[in-house]
Amino acid sequence: MKKFAVILSGCGVFDGAEIHEATLSLLAIDRAGASYEIFAPNIEQAHVVNHLTGKPTNETRNVLVESARIARGKISNLDDFDPKNFDALLFPGGFGVAKNLCDYAFKGPDMSINADVRNCVMSMHSAQKPIGALCISPVLIAGIIGAAEVTIGNDQATADDIAAFGGQHIEAGGSDIIVDKQNKIVTSPCYMLDARIDTIFSGVSSVVEALLQLSQSK
Amino acid sequence: MKKFAVILSGCGVFDGAEIHEATLSLLAIDRAGASYEIFAPNIEQAHVVNHLTGKPTNETRNVLVESARIARGKISNLDDFDPKNFDALLFPGGFGVAKNLCDYAFKGPDMSINADVRNCVMSMHSAQKPIGALCISPVLIAGIIGAAEVTIGNDQATADDIAAFGGQHIEAGGSDIIVDKQNKIVTSPCYMLDARIDTIFSGVSSVVEALLQLSQSK
Repeated sequence: MKKFAVILSGCGVFDGAEIHEATLSLLAIDRAGASYEIFAPNIEQAHVVNHLTGKPTNETRNVLVESARIARGKISNLDDFDPKNFDALLFPGGFGVAKNLCDYAFKGPDMSINADVRNCVMSMHSAQKPIGALCISPVLIAGIIGAAEVTIGNDQATADDIAAFGGQHIEAGGSDIIVDKQNKIVTSPCYMLDARIDTIFSGVSSVVEALLQLSQSK
Repeated sequence: MKKFAVILSGCGVFDGAEIHEATLSLLAIDRAGASYEIFAPNIEQAHVVNHLTGKPTNETRNVLVESARIARGKISNLDDFDPKNFDALLFPGGFGVAKNLCDYAFKGPDMSINADVRNCVMSMHSAQKPIGALCISPVLIAGIIGAAEVTIGNDQATADDIAAFGGQHIEAGGSDIIVDKQNKIVTSPCYMLDARIDTIFSGVSSVVEALLQLSQSK
Protein backbone atom coordinates (compact mmCIF):
# COMPACT_ATOMS: atom_id res chain seq x y z
CA MET A 1 0.00 0.00 0.00
CA LYS A 2 1.35 3.41 -1.01
CA LYS A 3 1.78 5.89 1.84
CA PHE A 4 1.37 9.66 1.74
CA ALA A 5 2.74 12.26 4.12
CA VAL A 6 0.25 15.12 4.42
CA ILE A 7 1.71 18.38 5.77
CA LEU A 8 -0.62 20.76 7.62
CA SER A 9 -0.08 24.40 8.58
CA GLY A 10 -2.72 24.96 11.26
CA CYS A 11 -6.52 24.74 11.19
CA GLY A 12 -8.51 27.33 9.27
CA VAL A 13 -8.18 29.00 5.87
CA PHE A 14 -7.15 32.48 7.06
CA ASP A 15 -4.31 31.55 9.45
CA GLY A 16 -3.76 27.80 8.96
CA ALA A 17 -4.48 24.85 6.71
CA GLU A 18 -7.63 25.12 4.59
CA ILE A 19 -9.91 22.62 6.35
CA HIS A 20 -11.82 21.36 3.29
CA GLU A 21 -8.66 20.87 1.24
CA ALA A 22 -6.99 19.05 4.15
CA THR A 23 -9.97 16.80 4.92
CA LEU A 24 -10.63 16.03 1.26
CA SER A 25 -6.93 15.16 0.79
CA LEU A 26 -7.33 12.47 3.45
CA LEU A 27 -10.56 11.24 1.86
CA ALA A 28 -9.04 11.12 -1.63
CA ILE A 29 -6.00 9.17 -0.37
CA ASP A 30 -8.19 6.70 1.51
CA ARG A 31 -10.54 6.25 -1.46
CA ALA A 32 -7.55 5.60 -3.76
CA GLY A 33 -6.54 2.68 -1.54
CA ALA A 34 -3.48 4.40 -0.08
CA SER A 35 -2.69 5.37 3.51
CA TYR A 36 -1.48 8.58 5.10
CA GLU A 37 0.38 10.05 8.04
CA ILE A 38 -0.09 13.69 9.01
CA PHE A 39 2.66 16.13 10.01
CA ALA A 40 2.97 19.77 11.03
CA PRO A 41 5.83 21.91 12.35
CA ASN A 42 5.91 22.53 16.11
CA ILE A 43 6.00 26.34 15.87
CA GLU A 44 3.82 29.30 16.83
CA GLN A 45 1.37 30.50 14.18
CA ALA A 46 2.32 33.83 12.56
CA HIS A 47 -0.93 35.14 13.99
CA VAL A 48 -4.51 34.10 14.77
CA VAL A 49 -7.41 35.34 12.62
CA ASN A 50 -11.03 35.48 13.80
CA HIS A 51 -12.69 33.61 10.91
CA LEU A 52 -16.04 35.31 11.54
CA THR A 53 -14.71 38.88 11.22
CA GLY A 54 -11.56 38.19 9.20
CA LYS A 55 -9.54 40.27 11.68
CA PRO A 56 -6.42 39.25 13.63
CA THR A 57 -6.83 38.61 17.37
CA ASN A 58 -4.38 38.82 20.28
CA GLU A 59 -4.26 35.05 20.76
CA THR A 60 -1.25 32.81 20.19
CA ARG A 61 -1.69 29.29 18.83
CA ASN A 62 0.71 26.51 17.84
CA VAL A 63 0.70 25.09 14.32
CA LEU A 64 1.15 21.45 15.42
CA VAL A 65 -1.49 21.71 18.17
CA GLU A 66 -4.08 23.35 15.89
CA SER A 67 -3.31 20.99 12.99
CA ALA A 68 -4.07 18.15 15.42
CA ARG A 69 -7.74 19.23 15.24
CA ILE A 70 -7.91 18.21 11.58
CA ALA A 71 -5.86 15.06 12.32
CA ARG A 72 -8.07 14.03 15.28
CA GLY A 73 -4.91 13.92 17.41
CA LYS A 74 -3.06 11.52 15.09
CA ILE A 75 -0.25 13.80 13.96
CA SER A 76 3.54 13.94 14.17
CA ASN A 77 6.05 16.74 14.52
CA LEU A 78 7.45 17.53 11.06
CA ASP A 79 10.87 17.37 12.73
CA ASP A 80 10.41 13.56 12.79
CA PHE A 81 9.62 13.23 9.07
CA ASP A 82 11.64 10.53 7.33
CA PRO A 83 11.31 10.33 3.51
CA LYS A 84 12.10 6.60 3.58
CA ASN A 85 8.66 5.93 5.06
CA PHE A 86 6.67 7.62 2.29
CA ASP A 87 5.84 7.30 -1.41
CA ALA A 88 4.41 10.78 -1.88
CA LEU A 89 4.08 14.16 -0.16
CA LEU A 90 0.97 16.36 -0.20
CA PHE A 91 0.49 19.98 0.89
CA PRO A 92 -3.12 21.18 1.27
CA GLY A 93 -3.46 24.96 0.99
CA GLY A 94 -4.75 27.74 3.20
CA PHE A 95 -3.01 30.94 4.27
CA GLY A 96 -1.13 28.90 6.88
CA VAL A 97 1.13 27.65 4.07
CA ALA A 98 2.07 31.25 3.25
CA LYS A 99 2.12 32.48 6.86
CA ASN A 100 3.46 29.55 8.92
CA LEU A 101 5.36 27.18 6.60
CA CYS A 102 6.96 30.20 4.94
CA ASP A 103 6.29 33.95 5.17
CA TYR A 104 5.26 34.57 1.57
CA ALA A 105 2.01 36.25 2.72
CA PHE A 106 4.04 38.91 4.49
CA LYS A 107 7.24 39.20 2.42
CA GLY A 108 6.31 37.99 -1.06
CA PRO A 109 9.32 36.89 -3.15
CA ASP A 110 11.68 37.80 -0.28
CA MET A 111 10.14 35.05 1.83
CA SER A 112 12.05 32.70 4.09
CA ILE A 113 11.02 29.06 4.51
CA ASN A 114 10.72 26.93 7.65
CA ALA A 115 13.77 24.65 7.79
CA ASP A 116 11.80 21.44 8.51
CA VAL A 117 9.48 22.19 5.59
CA ARG A 118 12.44 22.80 3.29
CA ASN A 119 14.15 19.59 4.41
CA CYS A 120 10.96 17.59 3.97
CA VAL A 121 10.41 18.82 0.41
CA MET A 122 14.08 18.56 -0.60
CA SER A 123 14.44 15.04 0.78
CA MET A 124 11.41 13.75 -1.16
CA HIS A 125 12.42 15.63 -4.32
CA SER A 126 15.99 14.30 -4.12
CA ALA A 127 14.61 10.78 -3.75
CA GLN A 128 12.53 11.37 -6.94
CA LYS A 129 9.31 10.91 -5.02
CA PRO A 130 6.24 12.89 -6.15
CA ILE A 131 5.00 16.01 -4.39
CA GLY A 132 1.48 17.44 -4.59
CA ALA A 133 0.62 21.04 -3.74
CA LEU A 134 -2.88 22.54 -3.57
CA CYS A 135 -4.08 26.15 -3.65
CA ILE A 136 -1.25 28.54 -2.61
CA SER A 137 1.21 25.69 -1.75
CA PRO A 138 2.83 25.69 -5.22
CA VAL A 139 4.48 29.00 -4.25
CA LEU A 140 6.21 27.17 -1.40
CA ILE A 141 7.31 24.35 -3.71
CA ALA A 142 8.62 26.80 -6.32
CA GLY A 143 10.46 28.67 -3.56
CA ILE A 144 12.23 25.47 -2.54
CA ILE A 145 12.96 23.61 -5.76
CA GLY A 146 12.79 26.47 -8.28
CA ALA A 147 12.26 25.12 -11.77
CA ALA A 148 8.90 23.37 -11.63
CA GLU A 149 5.77 23.76 -13.74
CA VAL A 150 2.93 24.59 -11.35
CA THR A 151 -0.43 26.33 -11.15
CA ILE A 152 -2.08 28.52 -8.54
CA GLY A 153 -5.02 29.21 -10.84
CA ASN A 154 -4.82 32.58 -12.58
CA ASP A 155 -3.52 35.21 -10.11
CA GLN A 156 -0.92 37.16 -12.08
CA ALA A 157 1.02 38.63 -9.12
CA THR A 158 1.51 35.19 -7.56
CA ALA A 159 2.36 33.73 -10.98
CA ASP A 160 5.04 36.41 -11.39
CA ASP A 161 6.54 35.50 -8.01
CA ILE A 162 6.65 31.83 -9.02
CA ALA A 163 8.54 32.90 -12.14
CA ALA A 164 10.93 34.91 -9.95
CA PHE A 165 11.72 31.70 -8.03
CA GLY A 166 12.61 30.06 -11.35
CA GLY A 167 9.32 28.21 -11.71
CA GLN A 168 6.91 28.22 -14.62
CA HIS A 169 3.29 29.09 -13.92
CA ILE A 170 0.56 27.54 -16.04
CA GLU A 171 -2.96 28.95 -15.81
CA ALA A 172 -5.60 26.43 -14.75
CA GLY A 173 -9.24 26.48 -13.67
CA GLY A 174 -11.70 24.55 -11.53
CA SER A 175 -10.56 21.03 -10.83
CA ASP A 176 -7.74 21.11 -13.42
CA ILE A 177 -4.37 19.73 -12.40
CA ILE A 178 -0.92 20.50 -13.75
CA VAL A 179 1.50 17.57 -13.81
CA ASP A 180 5.23 18.30 -14.09
CA LYS A 181 6.39 14.77 -14.94
CA GLN A 182 10.09 15.55 -14.90
CA ASN A 183 10.04 17.06 -11.41
CA LYS A 184 7.14 14.87 -10.25
CA ILE A 185 5.16 17.88 -9.02
CA VAL A 186 1.34 17.92 -9.23
CA THR A 187 -0.68 21.08 -8.49
CA SER A 188 -4.31 22.25 -8.57
CA PRO A 189 -5.82 25.70 -7.82
CA CYS A 190 -8.52 24.55 -5.35
CA TYR A 191 -9.72 27.55 -3.30
CA MET A 192 -7.34 29.97 -5.07
CA LEU A 193 -10.41 30.14 -7.30
CA ASP A 194 -13.97 30.62 -6.11
CA ALA A 195 -15.22 27.03 -6.16
CA ARG A 196 -17.85 24.69 -4.79
CA ILE A 197 -16.61 22.00 -2.43
CA ASP A 198 -17.38 19.22 -4.95
CA THR A 199 -15.03 20.92 -7.44
CA ILE A 200 -12.34 20.99 -4.74
CA PHE A 201 -12.81 17.26 -4.17
CA SER A 202 -12.51 16.55 -7.90
CA GLY A 203 -9.25 18.50 -8.11
CA VAL A 204 -7.79 16.92 -4.98
CA SER A 205 -8.76 13.41 -6.16
CA SER A 206 -7.06 14.02 -9.52
CA VAL A 207 -3.91 15.23 -7.73
CA VAL A 208 -3.83 12.11 -5.55
CA GLU A 209 -4.32 9.81 -8.57
CA ALA A 210 -1.52 11.57 -10.46
CA LEU A 211 0.82 11.31 -7.46
CA LEU A 212 0.12 7.57 -7.22
CA GLN A 213 0.94 7.15 -10.92
CA LEU A 214 4.15 9.15 -10.57
CA SER A 215 5.14 7.12 -7.51
CA GLN A 216 5.23 4.02 -9.75
CA SER A 217 7.37 5.55 -12.49
CA LYS A 218 11.17 5.88 -12.43
CA MET B 1 -32.83 23.19 -5.27
CA LYS B 2 -33.24 21.69 -1.80
CA LYS B 3 -31.48 23.59 0.97
CA PHE B 4 -29.89 22.20 4.11
CA ALA B 5 -29.08 23.98 7.35
CA VAL B 6 -25.88 22.50 8.83
CA ILE B 7 -25.38 23.20 12.54
CA LEU B 8 -21.80 23.30 13.87
CA SER B 9 -20.58 23.22 17.47
CA GLY B 10 -17.01 24.51 17.17
CA CYS B 11 -13.97 23.21 15.28
CA GLY B 12 -12.28 20.01 16.44
CA VAL B 13 -13.49 16.61 17.59
CA PHE B 14 -12.60 16.96 21.30
CA ASP B 15 -14.23 20.34 22.06
CA GLY B 16 -16.19 21.24 18.93
CA ALA B 17 -17.62 19.91 15.68
CA GLU B 18 -15.86 16.86 14.23
CA ILE B 19 -14.04 18.40 11.26
CA HIS B 20 -14.24 15.42 8.88
CA GLU B 21 -17.94 14.84 9.55
CA ALA B 22 -18.67 18.56 9.08
CA THR B 23 -16.64 18.91 5.87
CA LEU B 24 -17.98 15.67 4.40
CA SER B 25 -21.54 16.80 5.20
CA LEU B 26 -20.97 19.85 3.00
CA LEU B 27 -19.41 17.70 0.27
CA ALA B 28 -22.26 15.17 0.36
CA ILE B 29 -24.89 17.93 0.15
CA ASP B 30 -23.10 19.61 -2.76
CA ARG B 31 -22.64 16.29 -4.60
CA ALA B 32 -26.34 15.51 -4.16
CA GLY B 33 -27.22 18.73 -6.02
CA ALA B 34 -28.51 20.54 -2.95
CA SER B 35 -27.23 23.70 -1.25
CA TYR B 36 -26.41 24.53 2.36
CA GLU B 37 -26.15 27.32 4.88
CA ILE B 38 -24.07 26.90 8.04
CA PHE B 39 -25.07 27.98 11.56
CA ALA B 40 -23.61 27.87 15.05
CA PRO B 41 -24.66 29.38 18.38
CA ASN B 42 -22.85 32.54 19.49
CA ILE B 43 -21.71 31.18 22.89
CA GLU B 44 -18.47 30.37 24.67
CA GLN B 45 -17.19 26.80 24.29
CA ALA B 46 -17.56 24.67 27.44
CA HIS B 47 -13.77 24.40 27.35
CA VAL B 48 -10.82 24.19 24.95
CA VAL B 49 -8.94 20.91 24.48
CA ASN B 50 -5.38 20.66 23.15
CA HIS B 51 -5.92 18.10 20.38
CA LEU B 52 -2.29 16.98 20.49
CA THR B 53 -2.29 16.05 24.19
CA GLY B 54 -6.04 15.55 24.70
CA LYS B 55 -5.90 17.80 27.78
CA PRO B 56 -7.96 20.93 28.51
CA THR B 57 -6.19 24.29 28.27
CA ASN B 58 -6.84 27.65 29.95
CA GLU B 59 -8.05 29.28 26.74
CA THR B 60 -11.56 30.50 26.00
CA ARG B 61 -13.01 30.24 22.51
CA ASN B 62 -16.41 31.06 20.97
CA VAL B 63 -18.46 28.36 19.21
CA LEU B 64 -19.59 30.61 16.33
CA VAL B 65 -16.09 32.06 15.78
CA GLU B 66 -14.40 28.64 15.77
CA SER B 67 -17.13 27.07 13.62
CA ALA B 68 -16.41 29.84 11.11
CA ARG B 69 -13.08 28.07 10.43
CA ILE B 70 -14.91 25.10 8.94
CA ALA B 71 -17.36 27.41 7.16
CA ARG B 72 -14.57 29.60 5.66
CA GLY B 73 -16.28 32.60 7.27
CA LYS B 74 -19.67 31.94 5.63
CA ILE B 75 -21.72 31.21 8.73
CA SER B 76 -24.71 32.66 10.56
CA ASN B 77 -25.67 32.97 14.20
CA LEU B 78 -28.10 30.14 15.06
CA ASP B 79 -30.24 32.85 16.65
CA ASP B 80 -31.14 33.92 13.08
CA PHE B 81 -32.25 30.45 11.94
CA ASP B 82 -35.64 30.43 10.19
CA PRO B 83 -37.10 27.00 9.36
CA LYS B 84 -39.02 28.49 6.41
CA ASN B 85 -35.75 28.81 4.49
CA PHE B 86 -34.74 25.14 4.73
CA ASP B 87 -35.81 21.69 3.57
CA ALA B 88 -33.62 19.70 5.97
CA LEU B 89 -31.42 20.05 9.04
CA LEU B 90 -28.10 18.26 9.61
CA PHE B 91 -25.97 17.96 12.75
CA PRO B 92 -22.41 16.66 12.28
CA GLY B 93 -20.94 15.14 15.44
CA GLY B 94 -17.95 15.81 17.65
CA PHE B 95 -17.79 16.37 21.40
CA GLY B 96 -18.91 19.96 20.76
CA VAL B 97 -22.45 18.64 20.29
CA ALA B 98 -22.36 17.12 23.79
CA LYS B 99 -20.37 19.97 25.38
CA ASN B 100 -21.58 23.16 23.66
CA LEU B 101 -25.00 22.49 22.08
CA CYS B 102 -26.01 20.64 25.23
CA ASP B 103 -24.06 19.46 28.29
CA TYR B 104 -24.59 15.70 27.89
CA ALA B 105 -20.81 15.09 28.10
CA PHE B 106 -20.78 16.53 31.61
CA LYS B 107 -24.25 15.70 33.00
CA GLY B 108 -25.45 12.66 31.05
CA PRO B 109 -29.23 12.20 31.10
CA ASP B 110 -29.59 15.28 33.34
CA MET B 111 -28.35 17.45 30.52
CA SER B 112 -29.73 20.85 29.58
CA ILE B 113 -29.95 21.98 25.97
CA ASN B 114 -29.06 25.33 24.38
CA ALA B 115 -32.31 27.22 23.71
CA ASP B 116 -31.47 28.16 20.11
CA VAL B 117 -30.58 24.54 19.35
CA ARG B 118 -33.82 23.33 20.88
CA ASN B 119 -35.87 25.91 18.94
CA CYS B 120 -34.13 25.05 15.70
CA VAL B 121 -34.80 21.30 16.06
CA MET B 122 -38.39 21.75 17.31
CA SER B 123 -39.29 24.20 14.54
CA MET B 124 -38.09 21.83 11.80
CA HIS B 125 -39.66 18.82 13.47
CA SER B 126 -43.00 20.61 13.90
CA ALA B 127 -42.90 21.54 10.20
CA GLN B 128 -42.39 17.84 9.39
CA LYS B 129 -39.03 18.58 7.81
CA PRO B 130 -36.31 15.90 8.05
CA ILE B 131 -33.41 16.05 10.51
CA GLY B 132 -30.10 14.21 10.19
CA ALA B 133 -27.76 13.56 13.13
CA LEU B 134 -24.27 12.05 12.94
CA CYS B 135 -22.06 10.46 15.59
CA ILE B 136 -23.13 11.61 19.09
CA SER B 137 -25.77 14.10 17.79
CA PRO B 138 -28.66 11.59 18.03
CA VAL B 139 -28.45 12.00 21.82
CA LEU B 140 -29.24 15.68 21.37
CA ILE B 141 -32.15 14.89 19.03
CA ALA B 142 -33.56 12.26 21.41
CA GLY B 143 -33.17 14.76 24.26
CA ILE B 144 -35.31 17.27 22.35
CA ILE B 145 -37.97 15.24 20.58
CA GLY B 146 -37.98 12.09 22.68
CA ALA B 147 -39.56 9.23 20.79
CA ALA B 148 -37.30 8.71 17.78
CA GLU B 149 -35.51 5.63 16.45
CA VAL B 150 -31.83 6.52 16.25
CA THR B 151 -28.36 5.01 16.34
CA ILE B 152 -25.09 6.08 17.89
CA GLY B 153 -23.44 2.79 16.90
CA ASN B 154 -23.18 0.29 19.74
CA ASP B 155 -22.28 2.13 22.99
CA GLN B 156 -24.63 0.68 25.62
CA ALA B 157 -24.43 3.50 28.17
CA THR B 158 -25.32 6.11 25.55
CA ALA B 159 -28.05 3.84 24.16
CA ASP B 160 -29.51 3.57 27.67
CA ASP B 161 -29.58 7.36 27.98
CA ILE B 162 -31.37 7.63 24.64
CA ALA B 163 -33.97 5.18 26.00
CA ALA B 164 -34.27 7.34 29.16
CA PHE B 165 -35.18 10.30 26.89
CA GLY B 166 -37.95 8.18 25.38
CA GLY B 167 -36.03 7.28 22.24
CA GLN B 168 -35.31 3.88 20.78
CA HIS B 169 -31.71 2.97 20.05
CA ILE B 170 -30.93 0.63 17.17
CA GLU B 171 -27.43 -0.81 16.92
CA ALA B 172 -25.65 0.00 13.67
CA GLY B 173 -22.14 -0.33 12.26
CA GLY B 174 -19.81 1.29 9.73
CA SER B 175 -21.66 3.41 7.20
CA ASP B 176 -25.11 2.08 8.17
CA ILE B 177 -27.92 4.57 8.58
CA ILE B 178 -31.12 4.32 10.61
CA VAL B 179 -34.17 6.00 9.06
CA ASP B 180 -37.12 6.83 11.31
CA LYS B 181 -39.66 7.57 8.58
CA GLN B 182 -42.43 8.65 10.93
CA ASN B 183 -40.33 11.25 12.71
CA LYS B 184 -38.18 11.96 9.65
CA ILE B 185 -34.95 11.43 11.61
CA VAL B 186 -31.87 9.91 9.93
CA THR B 187 -28.78 8.90 11.94
CA SER B 188 -25.40 7.20 11.36
CA PRO B 189 -22.64 6.30 13.86
CA CYS B 190 -19.69 7.91 11.97
CA TYR B 191 -16.78 8.37 14.40
CA MET B 192 -18.70 6.90 17.35
CA LEU B 193 -17.09 3.79 15.85
CA ASP B 194 -13.44 3.46 14.86
CA ALA B 195 -13.67 4.10 11.12
CA ARG B 196 -11.69 5.13 8.06
CA ILE B 197 -12.59 8.50 6.55
CA ASP B 198 -14.01 6.84 3.42
CA THR B 199 -16.49 4.94 5.61
CA ILE B 200 -17.51 8.23 7.22
CA PHE B 201 -18.14 9.72 3.79
CA SER B 202 -20.29 6.74 2.78
CA GLY B 203 -22.40 7.07 5.92
CA VAL B 204 -22.78 10.82 5.59
CA SER B 205 -23.70 10.54 1.90
CA SER B 206 -26.40 7.97 2.72
CA VAL B 207 -27.79 10.25 5.44
CA VAL B 208 -27.98 13.18 3.00
CA GLU B 209 -29.70 11.06 0.33
CA ALA B 210 -32.25 9.78 2.88
CA LEU B 211 -32.94 13.35 4.08
CA LEU B 212 -33.55 14.47 0.50
CA GLN B 213 -36.01 11.61 -0.03
CA LEU B 214 -37.81 12.41 3.22
CA SER B 215 -37.99 16.09 2.27
CA GLN B 216 -40.12 15.08 -0.73
CA SER B 217 -42.59 12.92 1.21
CA LYS B 218 -45.59 14.15 3.18
